[in-house]
Amino acid sequence: MKEDKRSVEVCFSPALFANYRNDDSVVVIVDILRATSAIVTAFMNGVNRIIPVGTLEEAIAYKQKGYLVAAERDGIVRDFADFGNSPYNFRREIIAGKDIVYSTTNGTNAIMMAKESYRVVIGAYLNISALVNYIWSEDRDLLIICAGWKDKFSLEDSLFAGALADAVLKNKNFGTVCDSTYASIDLWNLARLDIMGYLEKAAQRHRLKKNKLDDVIGYCHTADLTGIIPVLENNYLKSLNY
Amino acid sequence: MKEDKRSVEVCFSPALFANYRNDDSVVVIVDILRATSAIVTAFMNGVNRIIPVGTLEEAIAYKQKGYLVAAERDGIVRDFADFGNSPYNFRREIIAGKDIVYSTTNGTNAIMMAKESYRVVIGAYLNISALVNYIWSEDRDLLIICAGWKDKFSLEDSLFAGALADAVLKNKNFGTVCDSTYASIDLWNLARLDIMGYLEKAAQRHRLKKNKLDDVIGYCHTADLTGIIPVLENNYLKSLNY
Repeated sequence: MKEDKRSVEVCFSPALFANYRNDDSVVVIVDILRATSAIVTAFMNGVNRIIPVGTLEEAIAYKQKGYLVAAERDGIVRDFADFGNSPYNFRREIIAGKDIVYSTTNGTNAIMMAKESYRVVIGAYLNISALVNYIWSEDRDLLIICAGWKDKFSLEDSLFAGALADAVLKNKNFGTVCDSTYASIDLWNLARLDIMGYLEKAAQRHRLKKNKLDDVIGYCHTADLTGIIPVLENNYLKSLNY
Repeated sequence: MKEDKRSVEVCFSPALFANYRNDDSVVVIVDILRATSAIVTAFMNGVNRIIPVGTLEEAIAYKQKGYLVAAERDGIVRDFADFGNSPYNFRREIIAGKDIVYSTTNGTNAIMMAKESYRVVIGAYLNISALVNYIWSEDRDLLIICAGWKDKFSLEDSLFAGALADAVLKNKNFGTVCDSTYASIDLWNLARLDIMGYLEKAAQRHRLKKNKLDDVIGYCHTADLTGIIPVLENNYLKSLNY
């Protein structure tokens, strides 16, 4: 890779972040099934801010202060919460103009972990083309962090990382020498013509199916429903204006 | 996966070991370029024992006691050492019947990390069919740990993990629900007909080439030169008899 190029890297697990950390980069957080797809949907439906919190205790404390709270663990909505992790929860009539507190198994910790970076944004198929244009416009290094499942590698997040990296690298100002970026792109090219078929083998698909929560998988793999990019500002997510 | 099957899992980085740890399993350590290929070669050439040590300080202490020492960092032989990390170093006339102390950037820490497991063995293309037969004969879960590069994902180790997992899963007593295992097998099937071509993009290939150490890449991807399986016993590696 020529040294004047912006680098593209993919981090397959939040537990590997220290090894890929690059505070000058734009960081895209990916948790396709379902946290980042749900967050993008919430902004599509007019939410004002989303406050990511790591622990259920923090989420409960916000609930007691009167906030709307989305909280799940292992895919299941917690009793005290108003919503779980399904994008279908975040309906306009309930959330428009509101602030929501959000705590999930994998996604929210990954968001807060990267907060020292130049910019942290939320990635999903729903906003993928907007992301590509935004990343090009920043002209900085790109680090894609897959939230995975309890710090393990996940196929559905890696496929998205490959889709995003492949698109970003079409711009010759960007380059990569990162093995996980190449692997992601190869997996994406294997899967892209039949994503649902490919994901038959993904562990998360089976977890969601077992809990009858797999109705969202097609929706979460739909490209370009919005141009909105949620961005971390201080300790909350808002819709990016750029 | 049926619950009576033995599970196959792939851990893409030593930094993820805690998330995949399974002390009842056979663990295969993989550092194709070059540590595990070099270790297998040393046993092919009659080494008695290999003592893996994590730090250069430990390696120096052994050297002062009169041991033969292999020690490299970032691919480069250290001044005090008798050998680096190239399989070509371990010639029969120098090592037959001897004990060697071994410290590398990525491989040796991965070996010692898993020492509480039922059994830790050393994997390379050089002994892949012997490994498959051994794993089948144990009839236990299998965990393949890729040493990677400084805790990052590496293509060459993941391809080998895919080759080994693919072969082990031909036996229907074994099954997997592990996303990284599926990804490894898919990458292996993409690369298998032209491994050298595929590895053109691997970062480690470029590191070795830059240091003129890439002469071993073909050798390290040669299948079944031996039936020897190095195994961790107490704090050293010896040749497995089973």
